Amino acid sequence: MKKGNVLVGQSGGPTAVINSSLAGVFKTAMERGYNKVYGMRYGIQGFMDEQYIDMSDHIKNELDLELLKRTPSAFLGTCRYKLPEIHENKEVYERIFELLDKLDIEVFVYIGGNDSMDTIRKLFDYSLLTGAKQKFVGCPKTIDNDLAITDHTPGFGSAAKYIATSTKEIIRDAMGFSYKKKNVTIVEIMGRNAGWLTGAAGLSRSEDCEGPDLIYLPEVPFNIQGFVGKVKELLEKKDVVVAVVSEGIKTEEGKYVCEYTAGSNTRDAFGHIQMTGTASYLANVIQGELGCKTRAVELSTLQRAASHLASKIDVDEAYNVGGATVKAADEGSSGVMVVIDRVSDDPYQSATGVYDVHRIANDEKVVPRKWINKNGDYVTEEFLDYVRPLIQGHYSPMMVEGLPRHLNLSMHNYDWISSKK
Amino acid sequence: MKKGNVLVGQSGGPTAVINSSLAGVFKTAMERGYNKVYGMRYGIQGFMDEQYIDMSDHIKNELDLELLKRTPSAFLGTCRYKLPEIHENKEVYERIFELLDKLDIEVFVYIGGNDSMDTIRKLFDYSLLTGAKQKFVGCPKTIDNDLAITDHTPGFGSAAKYIATSTKEIIRDAMGFSYKKKNVTIVEIMGRNAGWLTGAAGLSRSEDCEGPDLIYLPEVPFNIQGFVGKVKELLEKKDVVVAVVSEGIKTEEGKYVCEYTAGSNTRDAFGHIQMTGTASYLANVIQGELGCKTRAVELSTLQRAASHLASKIDVDEAYNVGGATVKAADEGSSGVMVVIDRVSDDPYQSATGVYDVHRIANDEKVVPRKWINKNGDYVTEEFLDYVRPLIQGHYSPMMVEGLPRHLNLSMHNYDWISSKK
Repeated sequence: MKKGNVLVGQSGGPTAVINSSLAGVFKTAMERGYNKVYGMRYGIQGFMDEQYIDMSDHIKNELDLELLKRTPSAFLGTCRYKLPEIHENKEVYERIFELLDKLDIEVFVYIGGNDSMDTIRKLFDYSLLTGAKQKFVGCPKTIDNDLAITDHTPGFGSAAKYIATSTKEIIRDAMGFSYKKKNVTIVEIMGRNAGWLTGAAGLSRSEDCEGPDLIYLPEVPFNIQGFVGKVKELLEKKDVVVAVVSEGIKTEEGKYVCEYTAGSNTRDAFGHIQMTGTASYLANVIQGELGCKTRAVELSTLQRAASHLASKIDVDEAYNVGGATVKAADEGSSGVMVVIDRVSDDPYQSATGVYDVHRIANDEKVVPRKWINKNGDYVTEEFLDYVRPLIQGHYSPMMVEGLPRHLNLSMHNYDWISSKK
Repeated sequence: MKKGNVLVGQSGGPTAVINSSLAGVFKTAMERGYNKVYGMRYGIQGFMDEQYIDMSDHIKNELDLELLKRTPSAFLGTCRYKLPEIHENKEVYERIFELLDKLDIEVFVYIGGNDSMDTIRKLFDYSLLTGAKQKFVGCPKTIDNDLAITDHTPGFGSAAKYIATSTKEIIRDAMGFSYKKKNVTIVEIMGRNAGWLTGAAGLSRSEDCEGPDLIYLPEVPFNIQGFVGKVKELLEKKDVVVAVVSEGIKTEEGKYVCEYTAGSNTRDAFGHIQMTGTASYLANVIQGELGCKTRAVELSTLQRAASHLASKIDVDEAYNVGGATVKAADEGSSGVMVVIDRVSDDPYQSATGVYDVHRIANDEKVVPRKWINKNGDYVTEEFLDYVRPLIQGHYSPMMVEGLPRHLNLSMHNYDWISSKK
């Protein structure tokens, strides 16, 4: 019997390798004899408006596939859309399943993080209620590395590599200026509740770099005056102090440090506070209290988009995990997420597995307390040993005229820009 | 007759390739039979305190030299120190020349920008007054590309490559999130008075990327309400707007846009205002007036330190320019700066020359008005054709354990850090 179609979407914050998973889904679906692979534009939100593409129109050969693996951000577009509970709004589900039937979808793959796995869980549950035939499989993706069960998430390794590299470069820059002038640099890194990315800055400590002096994860309450005291103490011993902080550090009163700033913070569709300005705020405090030169560096979206510095391990794992979602569905699984199991630390080896998505959705994996030092101002060697294999290897960008080439779905408004020349 | 020694220093803001020039100085000095190459720690400021090293103690083989070429920030340390006018304070000059004699210095090379060329000019003038035998040669260096006479400065090409690459990645990131939600991203780029770096963001416009929508250079007065109007107009046609602004844009009243922010701005030793917050300020204005989601991204020190993405043309030219300083002095020149002449555009070819430093020092080269479009909100094709050759080619970092390896002069406090583990 001829196979039907695969539908794939991307959701939540993008990563440098989210499209490598998309490439893996496409490739495996083709190899396993599915008819077409449809891509949702802007995740489930766009799909409900019948926004989708036939992937074959855009990936015409192996070169396109390789470009897709090297393209940052969500190739298909992404969304932050939370499905209602089934009992709250059945119409949304009826609409989605009507479209799935219309497009002869057999496999539904959603590439995303915690909120996206919540979508897979609800669609799977609804399929159980109605006896719908589609298989629903989650493909893990998040720079935050905060998904449960999986050893780590695709996207984390490349972000960690970018962060460690940039931290090394920032430290060297700061050290150049230290003569008779002390300076303090505060680097702000993404990660609302989990400090995996912030801790990865510690990888910069190596034979040729002493690494940051202080690393503050959101897992440990942050004491602003304690921080000032530590910086002061360090400045008595050395001229250059570099501290790395998570955007999500909170004081003991449970208030985000960035909330102490004058700027107003907004909330997204999931009610998460939009973070900004933690490093700037702390730099101002240090400058005010200690009088030394300070600089705040926010790595911002660059840390999730820097495919030019992607980790080979990460790109390859993302690709394999994408392929494994289709394989799992093809072999009969549904309501599962593909996970990465670490088979061996040294040499590093990993393999994919599948796991019940109900056990994963909405469960944030944070850094264990034992992987943060006693003072709460650095990560331990065990933490670094866990992350180090994930940043290995370089995935050379395909350079055209000196810049990395990406695969582009559509040149929005390109005519307009051309006419502007 | 046996040759004496060479003294080399680094000054001002660092670049990704300032150490490639240092490597060139060292290599050519050794090849031309100079006895030793001394490196000033922290430029002329450290040197006056007798802070210097023998470069041979740190560059022991060709591998070290290659690592040095790939090491960002000033290997020797840098300073922002302005020499007094000769008639104001002769003692400073007496002190410097006493040290030069003591170390048997024949050639004094200073790698830097405008302020550093001012140092070369004054030392040369003093040598004329006293008949001192040393040769003084300037080696151009600045990401800002604002030195006169030379076609461009080493450091600019690599910063331009990083900026264009990051802009491409930022644009893709922003486009992923555009479904039923308009968003505006404002990217802030270094360059106090000259918009060379900001304009380089325009290189991101290529077959696979539409590039930023608006580019504002400091050469043209900036109208805040005009900017808001343009963004509003663009948002009627498209969902994602990306504007790139120089940190140094000023309103028609001559006030820096960043001065409109609440934060206080400080001044450095040369009286330059320390810039910060232009993008944040404009993002707040847009959010307030148009109500859409905004994001400010400040490329910060990363743009001058990202040796992991250095341009091969730039690293090679920096190396050649370094070598050419020693060659010029060895052949009798003094009071000159080495310049880069563009021999051919297509194929791109360059050669070094020397030029009287009096014609260069303290003269800032800005972007010609004809290379900015009529509206003052984009650069022209001529501008992009000028910059494009300078970002070509990739200088692969030497990766060790997944991160670029640098050459390190001294592991300050490393023992202390080790004991912290």
